[in-house]
Amino acid sequence: MTEKPTREDRFSFGLWTVGWQAVDPFGAATRPPLDPVETVHRLAELGAWGVTFHDDDLIPFGSEDAERERHIKRFRRALAETGLVVPMATTNLFAHPVFRDGGLTSNDRAVRRFALRKVMRNLDLAAELGATTYVLWGGREGSETDASKNVPDALARYREGIDTLCQYIVNNGYDIRLALEPKPNEPRGDILLPTIGHALAFISQLEYHEMVGVNPEVGHEQMAGLNFVHGIGQALWQGKLFHIDLNGQRGPRFDQDLIFGHGDLLSAFFLVDLLEQGGYQGPRHFDYKPLRTESIEGVWESAAANMRSYLLLRERARAYRADPDVQEALRAARVDELATPTLAPGETAGELRVDRDAWEGFDPNGAAENGYGFVRLAQLALEHVVGAR
Amino acid sequence: MTEKPTREDRFSFGLWTVGWQAVDPFGAATRPPLDPVETVHRLAELGAWGVTFHDDDLIPFGSEDAERERHIKRFRRALAETGLVVPMATTNLFAHPVFRDGGLTSNDRAVRRFALRKVMRNLDLAAELGATTYVLWGGREGSETDASKNVPDALARYREGIDTLCQYIVNNGYDIRLALEPKPNEPRGDILLPTIGHALAFISQLEYHEMVGVNPEVGHEQMAGLNFVHGIGQALWQGKLFHIDLNGQRGPRFDQDLIFGHGDLLSAFFLVDLLEQGGYQGPRHFDYKPLRTESIEGVWESAAANMRSYLLLRERARAYRADPDVQEALRAARVDELATPTLAPGETAGELRVDRDAWEGFDPNGAAENGYGFVRLAQLALEHVVGAR
Amino acid sequence: MTEKPTREDRFSFGLWTVGWQAVDPFGAATRPPLDPVETVHRLAELGAWGVTFHDDDLIPFGSEDAERERHIKRFRRALAETGLVVPMATTNLFAHPVFRDGGLTSNDRAVRRFALRKVMRNLDLAAELGATTYVLWGGREGSETDASKNVPDALARYREGIDTLCQYIVNNGYDIRLALEPKPNEPRGDILLPTIGHALAFISQLEYHEMVGVNPEVGHEQMAGLNFVHGIGQALWQGKLFHIDLNGQRGPRFDQDLIFGHGDLLSAFFLVDLLEQGGYQGPRHFDYKPLRTESIEGVWESAAANMRSYLLLRERARAYRADPDVQEALRAARVDELATPTLAPGETAGELRVDRDAWEGFDPNGAAENGYGFVRLAQLALEHVVGAR
Amino acid sequence: MTEKPTREDRFSFGLWTVGWQAVDPFGAATRPPLDPVETVHRLAELGAWGVTFHDDDLIPFGSEDAERERHIKRFRRALAETGLVVPMATTNLFAHPVFRDGGLTSNDRAVRRFALRKVMRNLDLAAELGATTYVLWGGREGSETDASKNVPDALARYREGIDTLCQYIVNNGYDIRLALEPKPNEPRGDILLPTIGHALAFISQLEYHEMVGVNPEVGHEQMAGLNFVHGIGQALWQGKLFHIDLNGQRGPRFDQDLIFGHGDLLSAFFLVDLLEQGGYQGPRHFDYKPLRTESIEGVWESAAANMRSYLLLRERARAYRADPDVQEALRAARVDELATPTLAPGETAGELRVDRDAWEGFDPNGAAENGYGFVRLAQLALEHVVGAR
Repeated sequence: MTEKPTREDRFSFGLWTVGWQAVDPFGAATRPPLDPVETVHRLAELGAWGVTFHDDDLIPFGSEDAERERHIKRFRRALAETGLVVPMATTNLFAHPVFRDGGLTSNDRAVRRFALRKVMRNLDLAAELGATTYVLWGGREGSETDASKNVPDALARYREGIDTLCQYIVNNGYDIRLALEPKPNEPRGDILLPTIGHALAFISQLEYHEMVGVNPEVGHEQMAGLNFVHGIGQALWQGKLFHIDLNGQRGPRFDQDLIFGHGDLLSAFFLVDLLEQGGYQGPRHFDYKPLRTESIEGVWESAAANMRSYLLLRERARAYRADPDVQEALRAARVDELATPTLAPGETAGELRVDRDAWEGFDPNGAAENGYGFVRLAQLALEHVVGAR
Repeated sequence: MTEKPTREDRFSFGLWTVGWQAVDPFGAATRPPLDPVETVHRLAELGAWGVTFHDDDLIPFGSEDAERERHIKRFRRALAETGLVVPMATTNLFAHPVFRDGGLTSNDRAVRRFALRKVMRNLDLAAELGATTYVLWGGREGSETDASKNVPDALARYREGIDTLCQYIVNNGYDIRLALEPKPNEPRGDILLPTIGHALAFISQLEYHEMVGVNPEVGHEQMAGLNFVHGIGQALWQGKLFHIDLNGQRGPRFDQDLIFGHGDLLSAFFLVDLLEQGGYQGPRHFDYKPLRTESIEGVWESAAANMRSYLLLRERARAYRADPDVQEALRAARVDELATPTLAPGETAGELRVDRDAWEGFDPNGAAENGYGFVRLAQLALEHVVGAR
Repeated sequence: MTEKPTREDRFSFGLWTVGWQAVDPFGAATRPPLDPVETVHRLAELGAWGVTFHDDDLIPFGSEDAERERHIKRFRRALAETGLVVPMATTNLFAHPVFRDGGLTSNDRAVRRFALRKVMRNLDLAAELGATTYVLWGGREGSETDASKNVPDALARYREGIDTLCQYIVNNGYDIRLALEPKPNEPRGDILLPTIGHALAFISQLEYHEMVGVNPEVGHEQMAGLNFVHGIGQALWQGKLFHIDLNGQRGPRFDQDLIFGHGDLLSAFFLVDLLEQGGYQGPRHFDYKPLRTESIEGVWESAAANMRSYLLLRERARAYRADPDVQEALRAARVDELATPTLAPGETAGELRVDRDAWEGFDPNGAAENGYGFVRLAQLALEHVVGAR
Repeated sequence: MTEKPTREDRFSFGLWTVGWQAVDPFGAATRPPLDPVETVHRLAELGAWGVTFHDDDLIPFGSEDAERERHIKRFRRALAETGLVVPMATTNLFAHPVFRDGGLTSNDRAVRRFALRKVMRNLDLAAELGATTYVLWGGREGSETDASKNVPDALARYREGIDTLCQYIVNNGYDIRLALEPKPNEPRGDILLPTIGHALAFISQLEYHEMVGVNPEVGHEQMAGLNFVHGIGQALWQGKLFHIDLNGQRGPRFDQDLIFGHGDLLSAFFLVDLLEQGGYQGPRHFDYKPLRTESIEGVWESAAANMRSYLLLRERARAYRADPDVQEALRAARVDELATPTLAPGETAGELRVDRDAWEGFDPNGAAENGYGFVRLAQLALEHVVGAR
């Protein structure tokens, strides 16, 4: 029997996920709004550990201060009643028309300043609620025509914005790190920092680079046809996997935000395997949308399905790693040999240059005759995924 | 009348481009081999400035030393006769079966050592021939199944390999910088460092990071559906555009290597505009394949077509920038305002936090009423591209 | 000087195009509603010939009969004042939540019956307003999980629905043909009849197949990475190009609905060339969205830009066809030879089987030496597109 | 314990699949040629039922008649020894340079005639060996530039070619049906009949349309981002699924030809479910390539893996259909209601038009409140796939 989700699994959901009313580019809402307080209670019942939010999810844009406080108070009470934590928060810099050319990189300087203030305001609340990660998804930072944006200027403003926010966090003594969320396109024709790679590269240029990491989303990388497991591998290697958004996608098309596992299932398996054995300790955050066809019952079923898919794949990943046949096949495929440095301890480039074993004594044609055994490994993995071993 | 290519245009071609015999996954060669000496002469006649090569393009894999010297001597003579330069060279770490799991990240350590030696050997030749850029395209560094490769280990080996090569260059006093060429897939199912972003991020982790930049290829980014102009903008912003591969592609599919301009024409226009006004001084290197349908006559026509497309687009980009209507539309779209820092000179995050003009005094609904004028700009650009202004 | 649009150019626009308020999956409206009467007047001033509509564009869903008549009356008056015609109309079977699993193929039979009635009602109006084409875009006919839909059943219902509508048209004596509009995905995960090909194949199964053709949209085919010119070529060849939706798209991603020409410009050129010389006499209908960044001024500029792009490309296509160098290159590439039947007049398969010239006397290696000259043709086309010849 | 493959499973393989020597666009062969006789024996040992071939797989292009007979004789003997059947054969119209602009639609009429003769010759052999399906994959029928090909002319020649072959089959009394295999691109930039839909549409235009169906390949549709299960559903509905090519692919990119199941696993599950319960009786033909990293041992492991993946998924599909929870969820989702005609028995369009229950009495807002229960179904399917129920 598959285990049930527990707090230890660190499953979290955004208010905007189960709360999505199913407005899409071609259709009106199919579901009524969800009260964040109800969401907190339902998620807790289902076994979730955390809840996350955009400022405007919790407090409607433009609320007066008193109203704002009321919303926060109710939310805090629900957290206290359920024990749910707020591991992460974020800002909505995309829905209001004022952000139609972006927030931190809008051509309009006054919009950029307003956007920074909107983030700062919610950073205060995030700190108050104990969040330690603050996500920035720049969904409107981009263009539809290359004529409209000088990219080096845009990146300079982006850097200025992120560094300003870091300065603000440091000066306020908040225990918060930023996580940038890449996406290639939608809603803009092309979005700046389109992939994990571009975001990591950008971070290397920041003054406060050590405070900033990434929050990759399964579907966003797959919209560019990229291997998500490879991307997460690079983020982990660079010490920058601060948070993760789990969901499903069926390749390059609109952003589907399917339930985790309902897209590329083999990739989801290898992702869970990597997260579980690669040292990632952060939240398992589901950023998905319940299908527009569903009523509210389907919404809660979909929330549960995300966690159940993760747990099922975790069971299979553990069995895969524990299987002696797999261990033998990994050795045969020399997967472990890649952990051995190419140079001998202390060896220099110059020494390699004159090592006869590496060149004159190496027979490339002979070496090419050994197969790598990757088919066997891949099939063992598939059989573990389908529960056949 | 459109200008003809001159040496000042810094157009270069790889031996393997015009020399492609048109073997593809489903068909045999349709053209005989080209002698590199003939290639040098023909490229010079057509107005090219430089020629580049993989070691095995010039000297068949496995040649004896004497034969090797003979190939090099003939090639040098052709360079001397024509005045063509060798701005860049690179290594073939993908064709021989020994590299079937990659060169610098093969699971097999002996292969990794052999690969480094192969690069070193050609670095010596590159230095001798005056090349100042050395490209590394890791086309076989990757996987078809996530089971076969621990990505953090692979990136650690990749870093070790690149740093070893940098050490070699420094120790030998070569005036050479490395340029990594990203590609998302093909021939591997997924290739490590799949985009400009991933490569730039990887470079930030190198010991010799200042010696290493990127060599992006138009089609490689477009195979992932990414905006090439945005990618080049980020590489320029990070000071890492060391070299560039110009060609054409029609979106996510196999690597087409079409003639420059024969893919996404609007993107090619904006690319030329960015290269010409963004401070890039390096070679305009065409890495394309003459269509398999063509005989040798079509090969040389295709080489000329690449340069002609570039020059035509350069003329149009200059006219676009010089057009007072465009200048006015750029101002109206506030493209220049993005160059102005978001914070005032000396302003801190804390000061912005209490600037009433940025929040309390800012009317988002009012500000949202101004259009950005991007349609007008995009249409002006299109009309310049089609020569209608 | 480029010509201005005239009625003879048969340019038409949907009310929903310029009227798009720029609600997208991540953001609220950036523009106020447009009165259809104003739209008719503005389009007429810009040189358009026709206007098209979904029932709900003209008459809000759920309007009482009197209100409905009032809307129609005002619209008719605007048509009369401007001379604009209504060449096409269509039904909104996607926005209301009741259609969330589709209209003609919803799993819910009552929804299917309601959907047919909604189409019939607007067919009456379309006939009254003189439309001769009625488009059906089944944007909600599809699924997100293969578990939810038996495709053969769905297609049987789709056929039943279309045949029922044809019967209705015939029985009412309307002079109307149906045009199905394919799309691969969005808003559904996968849509039935995803491409021109699937729609044409489906039509071949209809009882009233001669009354039904296709209304292909540039961006919809390009979302699947397909060559739109090839698709239109097949639709023309099958006599089924009843209507066309012109716009722009940048490859597999969300449905961008860019201005015509602002996507793949070379493809747009060849499309105009094919439409103008391939015998298509129908409307040139723009189904695009003005960028969300634009105010109402940008909306009208974008409408004008569509027509201007078409006219510019038409000029260039005519110059291309008239150019003696192009004509010679077409002959050299044996493009005309493809119009000659492969068999001689009256020749049978059995006769070909024994024709020694076709096999024993044919030298494949010799024949393979002739190049096809496609590079030259492609470059001539590019130079015409950029106005360089 | 999972069952082993038997003859009853009707698994077949092409000689060119296990025999692929792993030449790709960037690399040389990594494996020696396989003798077709050995292939037949090994496949039989692994439990396969059939073997298929291109003419040139069995008999090298250009063989003399005596040599040809020798190859056929050895092959026949191996078939007799093993009991393997030849359910299908096909022609190589893509490898030789003479076909670089296609076979049946080459601009060169002599090439077209030669191509037809090449097909006829192998049709004779196919008939002799008992094949009842003859596949035509037109991989070279296409273009890289729209300038090079008039598509209506090309399709006219394509039709002429196919009809000529049908005439040949009929006149010779062969018990053979043709199956066209669509593919969107690669090796040509764009291929004619790019999807199942385009092929089915084309077939509807043939004189001998009843003799011609399709041979869809998993990866080919997925290269266009299309839902393969939907495509197969349409082919079945039109009675045209004559044959099928099973393999794996990871979305729009080069043609990967992975092992069945090693691409989109959920789609593979629903495909097996559809084939098994949708009435398809033909071969389960694997058209894949063993990874280039593998030695010959991996080749045979990969062959076995294809069959094993199919059987595992078939077991899970059967369990899914037998699960009472699934049956209940299917009913709740009204999947069966889609099999009920929308009109009542004998009802006409005119009668529906005046049925008050369908319009006046129908409450769309009320009806919209029911969810469809697709999340539950999708999750049940996933849990069956991973063997968790």
